[in-house]
Amino acid sequence: MTLTKFMPASAAALLLTASAAVAQDAAPGFDEVGPYIMTTLLFLVGGFLVFWMAAGFAMLEAGLVRSKNVTMQLTKNIALFSIASIMYWAFGFGIMYPGDFNGYFSMGTSFTALEPVGLAAADAALDYASAGSDFFFQLMFVAATASIVSGALAERIKLWPFLAFVVVLTGFMYPISGSWQWGGGWLSEMGFSDFAGSTIVHSVGGWAALAGAIVLGPRLGKYKDGRVNPMPGSNLALATLGTFILWLGWFGFNGGSQLAAGTVGDITDVSRIFANTNMAAASGAVAALILTQLMYKKVDLTMVLNGALAGLVSITAEPLAPTLFGALWIGAVGGVIVVFTVPLLDKFKIDDVVGAIPVHLIAGIWGTIAVVFYNSDASLGTQITGIIAYGAFTFVVSLVLWFILKAVLGIRVSEEAEIQGLDTSELGMEAYPEFSKG
Amino acid sequence: MTLTKFMPASAAALLLTASAAVAQDAAPGFDEVGPYIMTTLLFLVGGFLVFWMAAGFAMLEAGLVRSKNVTMQLTKNIALFSIASIMYWAFGFGIMYPGDFNGYFSMGTSFTALEPVGLAAADAALDYASAGSDFFFQLMFVAATASIVSGALAERIKLWPFLAFVVVLTGFMYPISGSWQWGGGWLSEMGFSDFAGSTIVHSVGGWAALAGAIVLGPRLGKYKDGRVNPMPGSNLALATLGTFILWLGWFGFNGGSQLAAGTVGDITDVSRIFANTNMAAASGAVAALILTQLMYKKVDLTMVLNGALAGLVSITAEPLAPTLFGALWIGAVGGVIVVFTVPLLDKFKIDDVVGAIPVHLIAGIWGTIAVVFYNSDASLGTQITGIIAYGAFTFVVSLVLWFILKAVLGIRVSEEAEIQGLDTSELGMEAYPEFSKG
Amino acid sequence: MTLTKFMPASAAALLLTASAAVAQDAAPGFDEVGPYIMTTLLFLVGGFLVFWMAAGFAMLEAGLVRSKNVTMQLTKNIALFSIASIMYWAFGFGIMYPGDFNGYFSMGTSFTALEPVGLAAADAALDYASAGSDFFFQLMFVAATASIVSGALAERIKLWPFLAFVVVLTGFMYPISGSWQWGGGWLSEMGFSDFAGSTIVHSVGGWAALAGAIVLGPRLGKYKDGRVNPMPGSNLALATLGTFILWLGWFGFNGGSQLAAGTVGDITDVSRIFANTNMAAASGAVAALILTQLMYKKVDLTMVLNGALAGLVSITAEPLAPTLFGALWIGAVGGVIVVFTVPLLDKFKIDDVVGAIPVHLIAGIWGTIAVVFYNSDASLGTQITGIIAYGAFTFVVSLVLWFILKAVLGIRVSEEAEIQGLDTSELGMEAYPEFSKG
Repeated sequence: MTLTKFMPASAAALLLTASAAVAQDAAPGFDEVGPYIMTTLLFLVGGFLVFWMAAGFAMLEAGLVRSKNVTMQLTKNIALFSIASIMYWAFGFGIMYPGDFNGYFSMGTSFTALEPVGLAAADAALDYASAGSDFFFQLMFVAATASIVSGALAERIKLWPFLAFVVVLTGFMYPISGSWQWGGGWLSEMGFSDFAGSTIVHSVGGWAALAGAIVLGPRLGKYKDGRVNPMPGSNLALATLGTFILWLGWFGFNGGSQLAAGTVGDITDVSRIFANTNMAAASGAVAALILTQLMYKKVDLTMVLNGALAGLVSITAEPLAPTLFGALWIGAVGGVIVVFTVPLLDKFKIDDVVGAIPVHLIAGIWGTIAVVFYNSDASLGTQITGIIAYGAFTFVVSLVLWFILKAVLGIRVSEEAEIQGLDTSELGMEAYPEFSKG
Repeated sequence: MTLTKFMPASAAALLLTASAAVAQDAAPGFDEVGPYIMTTLLFLVGGFLVFWMAAGFAMLEAGLVRSKNVTMQLTKNIALFSIASIMYWAFGFGIMYPGDFNGYFSMGTSFTALEPVGLAAADAALDYASAGSDFFFQLMFVAATASIVSGALAERIKLWPFLAFVVVLTGFMYPISGSWQWGGGWLSEMGFSDFAGSTIVHSVGGWAALAGAIVLGPRLGKYKDGRVNPMPGSNLALATLGTFILWLGWFGFNGGSQLAAGTVGDITDVSRIFANTNMAAASGAVAALILTQLMYKKVDLTMVLNGALAGLVSITAEPLAPTLFGALWIGAVGGVIVVFTVPLLDKFKIDDVVGAIPVHLIAGIWGTIAVVFYNSDASLGTQITGIIAYGAFTFVVSLVLWFILKAVLGIRVSEEAEIQGLDTSELGMEAYPEFSKG
Repeated sequence: MTLTKFMPASAAALLLTASAAVAQDAAPGFDEVGPYIMTTLLFLVGGFLVFWMAAGFAMLEAGLVRSKNVTMQLTKNIALFSIASIMYWAFGFGIMYPGDFNGYFSMGTSFTALEPVGLAAADAALDYASAGSDFFFQLMFVAATASIVSGALAERIKLWPFLAFVVVLTGFMYPISGSWQWGGGWLSEMGFSDFAGSTIVHSVGGWAALAGAIVLGPRLGKYKDGRVNPMPGSNLALATLGTFILWLGWFGFNGGSQLAAGTVGDITDVSRIFANTNMAAASGAVAALILTQLMYKKVDLTMVLNGALAGLVSITAEPLAPTLFGALWIGAVGGVIVVFTVPLLDKFKIDDVVGAIPVHLIAGIWGTIAVVFYNSDASLGTQITGIIAYGAFTFVVSLVLWFILKAVLGIRVSEEAEIQGLDTSELGMEAYPEFSKG
């Protein structure tokens, strides 16, 4: 009851006895619990939108691999999401949000617990949201990180070593580094700013993918006789669907990261975030559209799709502070980055099947730097410190892990299996068994 | 105005005259109508998520049939949803929620009516939600039941007899048995517990499908010379998309079934349900992933997809009470059930094209039994009584109905039509006319 | 604080000093800002649902064109949405909602501005919603208009001239005519009634498409030797998915157009709208299902899909006032319209690839007329005035614009390019490179 907040002493005294008398049985009024309900709802709606991104990654990646590897790509995507859900419950959430810790590393509380059924208002964190909704929302972010890895390493990695990597990434790596910022750790103390995770989610996924791509090596025949051999995706309709799904899910990704929806300021901020998120995606797509026309005389749809995604990644570190014009140019730079860095990776013979590294790692770095243009609390030095910290930790640990997996299990399918396609060789099941291959 | 709830007698008296004086024109404050608005919103958001499941079933089934039957499968799915929408308005909703009745059977009020435009707060059920949102939400459930049937009977059933079955199922069968529990009938009186419908929705769909599969017989060549002839689905990308859609929609299916969102306890419970629902799907998928690897030395994607769905069905009877660990093992058992019962059906030469009977009927029974582990109000005897009651009623009535349809209209296409494919023979329209068939 | 609204003079006096004393720092209670939060939320949820329609149009159109033009259709759809996002920000929103103007034409305020971060409740439009959420919601409508055009003109229009048309349509044409009604202009003054845009959005898109189809001419070989040559869509699974997506998005399209969700009356009205919208889609689908069976002895899936969409368009001008029975027959007439007007267009050799003109223009006109049956405030004369005004303006301006584009850039690809397919000839990229073409 907010009443007592503005009651004059005399009136308050008048009410005091009665209030106390009924306090045991009278539940707080809706006006007191409304903000808690709204923020919980924000997490639930934001969470199901980010869940939907798992389908987006699956469709994008299934559309961009060749048809002989589609079943494998689908399998990896549904499996990685499921594993992330379990690992983040068992270890990740507790490690990432440990409450009080040394700021660098915490084993936290294992096995996330939900509030009891029918939680009483008196026992709720009325200034925040239900723990269950918060867990649900955060869980979806770790799954996004793992999805990024799966795209880059497609068409040649074995299923189980990949899933083993996902176990470690979602249960430990992502939560440990995530705790540095979102768990109230050392980077948060230092003033690092990454609203919804350009670095913490997207670059981390990109670094893990980069390490994997290096250890794994390019697909057979991708770089031959000094030339880059294009290997077109089998289903651009699916890839486009996946992009639209990701775009939709991103409203939850960025909007939900406001972490509050129960005041005029908060819900209006969520609106800003929605509008800016959409603008950055649009300008990223348009930048790639125009640039591929200018550079190649032909619009490249896969670049336009990745341009939209890069725009989204670029605005993710600060979707609130920029004006719509700010979102426009920050997103457009993301689109430009994609068009220039996709061929750059090929120059280094790093074979990233879906363009995940340009979109999530490079645009993620850009977005984290771009925070300084509109958020006066952010300093370039701290932003770069954060970028380097996440990069160094994730890249080095991933590299070690990929080498261990390579040594212990082997991470790459045989040449015969790769040529034949992973679907028949590894899974014995084709995605499109009736559509003859060209 | 909840004010009077805690006002001391003196102050209340002081306010009384004035309150009465303004009662005629002053609308109730937001604090009084907030819970009604939140619960209505829960039904609308939950409802559109469950609507989305109709697309999920359509994609799952279109992906799991052979390409020569895809147009037919799509046609059935959009038609059955549309018919369910009309029949549930004309008859179903009134039969299922009749208010006072004998507990077994009621003709209810036909032709569902919505509240008048611009409903006054004084005329609203402020402790619940708008009737329109409730109808919208409930309607989506009956459509799910019909979708289950369409998958099992794919690739050989005629369009119109199938739709005739849907008319009876959605207008009468499902509503009558649904009223036993959700309409306040005899099973509800007895203490049967089925939170969101493992039995009432999923098993009922499964029983109707089983009766149909028996009367209809297996597809030509499915069981030949004592061997089971695999007939792989034509598009596993679509099937995976369908599974992700269903998973997403299930948050509305289970979460909305809390039927309230306007208190701390209720919205926190909805959060529990979201988290548990996700966990059960994840563990169902992982169980099938591991089990197919162990049993067949190769992961089977369609089993993983059905494992996720079985996990979802398993948690649907009690998504609130279990801990996350409870959701994990209940869902995992669902995944195990799928892996073992899919071949079992083949042993009995019951040809269920998409695995709907294992997923919805068998896992639905399991989920209904599993209620007793976490909900102390539920007794095993009553749960089994409910399972048997729904099974006997639905199976027997469905069997009779399928036989009548067989006698009157014929339910199976000719051998030539089946071999040629239902798309060209029955509809004259191919789903993928340009992709040559292997 | 609504307290003072019903406090007796004596008690009010008692509180007065204290209230005034804390007024500077005490934020208004949740009961005062709740309606603002709920309406803002309605716009955000409604907005992301309408965003999703962009994916629906993309999938519907990609499924209904031949596989050689799929990449181009996908490219157009993601590009047009992105361009609409930018143009509506730069010009459209300001033109469409100028506040005070002459009722016919206003240049408005360019470059939409959002509220500042952390808006104070005192500075908010507490009786409405955040400007950011409103912009986000309205923006999605203009994109829908442009999507309608892209479908009709598929398989022969050049990319850049089409996008140039989109620039003008979304930045100027749609906003100018939209301001007549939704911006408080002359048609609004006159009493024209178009709740969510049967005319303002759908017919406008249809008129622009019709003008384009006339200027562009039919596809090569479509009308040869007096016969209509069917050119079946390449992927009916995608087309069905697109229809389900549009159906889902329409709940946001119509429901969000209530423009308020913070009272019992408003949220109950939103419920009515959801239920009616679903009913009209269902009855439109069923009408087309039955009619194609009766007329052609075979159900035509593409007609059923378009029947559902026509039902949706038909109810869009008045989704609130009708009973569910009203929604049923209004939607069914929409379905009938589609079945009869698709061949009619062919008679005039107007080649509308996806049936956008029957669905959006003709059913849009029908829906605008049908308002008079349930909304007693609407008069037939005014409805027809509005229909003619939007038709004349959009058709004439579009015609002029298409002719200019034809003269300046050329709007049609070469014969060779059209026969070869736009994907390889214009973009150098196939959507399904591995699936051989029949």
